[in-house]
Amino acid sequence: MSTTFTRIGLIGKAGDQQVAQTLQTLASHLAGQQREILLDAGIAPLFSDNPYPVADRATLSGRIDLAVVVGGDGTLLNAARSLAESDVAVLGVNLGRLGFLVDVSPDEMTLQMDRILGGHYQEDHRTLLHARMTRGEELLSETTALNDVIVHKRDIARMIELDTWIDGYFLNTNRSDGLIVTTPTGSTAYALSGGGPVLHPDLNAIALVPICPHTLSNRPIVLSDNAVIEIVLHPGTLEATVSCDGQISQPLQAGDHVQIRKHAHTLRLLHPVGHDYFAVLRRKLRWSEQP
Amino acid sequence: MSTTFTRIGLIGKAGDQQVAQTLQTLASHLAGQQREILLDAGIAPLFSDNPYPVADRATLSGRIDLAVVVGGDGTLLNAARSLAESDVAVLGVNLGRLGFLVDVSPDEMTLQMDRILGGHYQEDHRTLLHARMTRGEELLSETTALNDVIVHKRDIARMIELDTWIDGYFLNTNRSDGLIVTTPTGSTAYALSGGGPVLHPDLNAIALVPICPHTLSNRPIVLSDNAVIEIVLHPGTLEATVSCDGQISQPLQAGDHVQIRKHAHTLRLLHPVGHDYFAVLRRKLRWSEQP
Amino acid sequence: MSTTFTRIGLIGKAGDQQVAQTLQTLASHLAGQQREILLDAGIAPLFSDNPYPVADRATLSGRIDLAVVVGGDGTLLNAARSLAESDVAVLGVNLGRLGFLVDVSPDEMTLQMDRILGGHYQEDHRTLLHARMTRGEELLSETTALNDVIVHKRDIARMIELDTWIDGYFLNTNRSDGLIVTTPTGSTAYALSGGGPVLHPDLNAIALVPICPHTLSNRPIVLSDNAVIEIVLHPGTLEATVSCDGQISQPLQAGDHVQIRKHAHTLRLLHPVGHDYFAVLRRKLRWSEQP
Amino acid sequence: MSTTFTRIGLIGKAGDQQVAQTLQTLASHLAGQQREILLDAGIAPLFSDNPYPVADRATLSGRIDLAVVVGGDGTLLNAARSLAESDVAVLGVNLGRLGFLVDVSPDEMTLQMDRILGGHYQEDHRTLLHARMTRGEELLSETTALNDVIVHKRDIARMIELDTWIDGYFLNTNRSDGLIVTTPTGSTAYALSGGGPVLHPDLNAIALVPICPHTLSNRPIVLSDNAVIEIVLHPGTLEATVSCDGQISQPLQAGDHVQIRKHAHTLRLLHPVGHDYFAVLRRKLRWSEQP
Repeated sequence: MSTTFTRIGLIGKAGDQQVAQTLQTLASHLAGQQREILLDAGIAPLFSDNPYPVADRATLSGRIDLAVVVGGDGTLLNAARSLAESDVAVLGVNLGRLGFLVDVSPDEMTLQMDRILGGHYQEDHRTLLHARMTRGEELLSETTALNDVIVHKRDIARMIELDTWIDGYFLNTNRSDGLIVTTPTGSTAYALSGGGPVLHPDLNAIALVPICPHTLSNRPIVLSDNAVIEIVLHPGTLEATVSCDGQISQPLQAGDHVQIRKHAHTLRLLHPVGHDYFAVLRRKLRWSEQP
Repeated sequence: MSTTFTRIGLIGKAGDQQVAQTLQTLASHLAGQQREILLDAGIAPLFSDNPYPVADRATLSGRIDLAVVVGGDGTLLNAARSLAESDVAVLGVNLGRLGFLVDVSPDEMTLQMDRILGGHYQEDHRTLLHARMTRGEELLSETTALNDVIVHKRDIARMIELDTWIDGYFLNTNRSDGLIVTTPTGSTAYALSGGGPVLHPDLNAIALVPICPHTLSNRPIVLSDNAVIEIVLHPGTLEATVSCDGQISQPLQAGDHVQIRKHAHTLRLLHPVGHDYFAVLRRKLRWSEQP
Repeated sequence: MSTTFTRIGLIGKAGDQQVAQTLQTLASHLAGQQREILLDAGIAPLFSDNPYPVADRATLSGRIDLAVVVGGDGTLLNAARSLAESDVAVLGVNLGRLGFLVDVSPDEMTLQMDRILGGHYQEDHRTLLHARMTRGEELLSETTALNDVIVHKRDIARMIELDTWIDGYFLNTNRSDGLIVTTPTGSTAYALSGGGPVLHPDLNAIALVPICPHTLSNRPIVLSDNAVIEIVLHPGTLEATVSCDGQISQPLQAGDHVQIRKHAHTLRLLHPVGHDYFAVLRRKLRWSEQP
Repeated sequence: MSTTFTRIGLIGKAGDQQVAQTLQTLASHLAGQQREILLDAGIAPLFSDNPYPVADRATLSGRIDLAVVVGGDGTLLNAARSLAESDVAVLGVNLGRLGFLVDVSPDEMTLQMDRILGGHYQEDHRTLLHARMTRGEELLSETTALNDVIVHKRDIARMIELDTWIDGYFLNTNRSDGLIVTTPTGSTAYALSGGGPVLHPDLNAIALVPICPHTLSNRPIVLSDNAVIEIVLHPGTLEATVSCDGQISQPLQAGDHVQIRKHAHTLRLLHPVGHDYFAVLRRKLRWSEQP
């Protein structure tokens, strides 16, 4: 089921010196393995006297079969949204601090890279969300998210009121600070702080997690990822914001709709052979230590 | 996709006078529709001068294509476990108080019955769990559950310590009052009191919900229902109990294993056309009312 | 211990027709009881052909011994802050929907008023908070709160990081959406949605409730109300807002301090004889109904 | 405010070899300081060729002015209940693992002992609870607790139903696994796993924390420690157990009453000068570490 990769794009957190060094090591190692290298425009300035071709993200996504992303989970979220439609495989290299998505550490990076180029890797297919914001007939914007789509209050002192429908069935009216719609990938991010459950990446699910709900019996609910979720701002809620992966946002006003459904593409996320999701979970959530 | 039903079993909460009247009304109505009626042995005493054949549960399950269960969710849980392997469809009639599983009320019962006999109904396929308790090589017992399998402490003043593996991967060691392994059906029962999420019945999932965990970062985790869950009593935990649907229980001792996986069969649970899961949820959890 | 009241101020939610009628009924009833009436400037426009003297809030607070506040809990919060230093007693009349603070309903209002004027009432002394915001040596602002002082994020997509000291002892560094510092009165408001406990009004306590904390083991902590709480914005947190009772707010930047302590005055909150705090709690939190 | 101590009792976890060595070191050190030593009968077997006088707990409590307790928090809980009425000061020495109550480590034990004998120490006055269990006119038992009094289910598969009154006012009917009544000391023990808040030891408070409540809007409530709490088993709850500090228990049946109020005595708990409650909290709850 595994393929070998020939055209590799490098992506990183812009303007970080530690990233620069890691990327240069990676690039020369991969070039030595006769791979074609393409640099994301965002990191080209990190290479002085750069011998590699450079492309903007849109061009990059059409010309590579693997992207190596160096940085934190946030860097990978950004890359994932731009690469998902091209079915480019993605591998995350962290900067010394383990992430849920960037799980290769710099000191084992070239070793793992060789194994992956040799066809030895694990591949997750991570659910992405597609969100569509509309005002009456007008399309305000549409966007992709790997973690979550969050509708939240803008005026800090006032709750918002949201009506939610699932596949055309009314779920509830929710007075709260907001509502998180999360994938399994996003379930260990903001949704967890909001009291949501951990969703295993293999689960075909979308969860709704209310943020500080006024009605104390409101609880997170987990749906099949075939569900189509429609969130409408109640007439009394004058303003709100929808944000995707905490990176893209759109202001909303009373009556606006946010429709969220599974994206047609999934993210091909690579891990070294032997990757252990539960070990990452224990380490990130400090389950392994005796209090 | 719907079928019509010809041999109908009647099951009820034993020794309840309100049940008796509802069952008699049902039986004569169904007999009037030229259906073959079979009474579960448990309710035969409720029929004085009983004109209908009677069978024990095992015989019943092999001879009927629909069971109508009159009582509460507990009555239906009991029936579900005994009927699941025969793929008998099940319909629940409540006694005036809406349940998550028994959603036909007595006053609309004959009307809904006629529609269902006419082929107009909705059919859920509810995941069941299969639990296997072993001590070394010895099989202690195995059982089926529609709601949940719970491993919990017996000595009220002491926590238990459980090691959990998922598909052979170690998840964690959990010091707590116990661990709930729940289906979507069970997610609105005890697991909800324990802080677990609501799982929609369409979701192919199993959730693990720790009860009063000592490690405060422990959280519910939701897995694909293909997961095989292995729970082992830690050496220091001298005793515990496993209970299925709160109705069947088995004592455990240090080192015993509980293996839980999806049952090979699902429960065919019928609802009237127009059944609305979210409406039941709002009503049972009091979401619909303004505080 | 009870006193009788001779100069009564009327305060209400501005621009609400239902409030107007209630205030007019109250005013003429009290005038008939030979009480001196003084209208808060905010409600004078609700009286056409107004026969009563009018005063701004500051003047009012110095000239009355009882304020009757007509509206919701929000109206009373606003009044409480402006009246606390003058030790004016406060009575809340709701507009048909029971509040935690406004617990006299319009239809029993004149009856209860007569009893209170006759010296029959209960009096709570509610703790108020005093918050002082400083930037280095500079005092940014200081304010009073009856419910809560909340330090929260302004940029919706980013957590803030706060260092908290209690009486000069370091408590923790908290990455979250914010931190609620609440009185017993505020414990049934926003703090409850954030997962805080209910604090009985008789308890001399202040609670800290983190909002969506990143560290899952963070929990609400309840302190004696003699505690002096110092919250400092971590260097990496570029901006935040502090808000008092959800009605007064002050922008903050990295390094700013918020010092919170018990106010020197308490609020004298009146209730009819027979007032039952737990009955209000059951009714507002829907504890009294069987699910 | 500090006194010096002349007659010192030694108490320990029976039958533990590490305890034996620590106690012997302590005893000879204290004897060298011209203090009178008295051994609790439970630990006498740990001293071979014992030169010190031995007394049972009741005698001990009347003859000493300081008890040094070697073990875990559980050992100190047990000692506290037996010593509280004699106003004996208590110091806890842990066995290498920091506890909330036993906060002196063995390697600094003799140093800290000398400081304490020199009058340099901090003294907490910890609230204790007094519980009285009655059946009609009959007193079933009464007991003291430093951590908590818990009424919980005995039949693992069935919830219990409890009616609670506070100072004669009805609070609520609670269907759950049980109800924890906790002191500030107990707030970091079982009550924390049940979702209760941390209560600072200086706070004069008692908290009620429901265990897995059926009504999702049920929340912990914190009361003044002057509150008298009356818990009654609902008619339908055939059996339950009340347990104090997880160490003393009493079976209950339908209609039994449990009355809980602040004990007339407090526990005099000593700490080294510089003891920092929040530091212990951070370390035990793992707040200090970056996830």
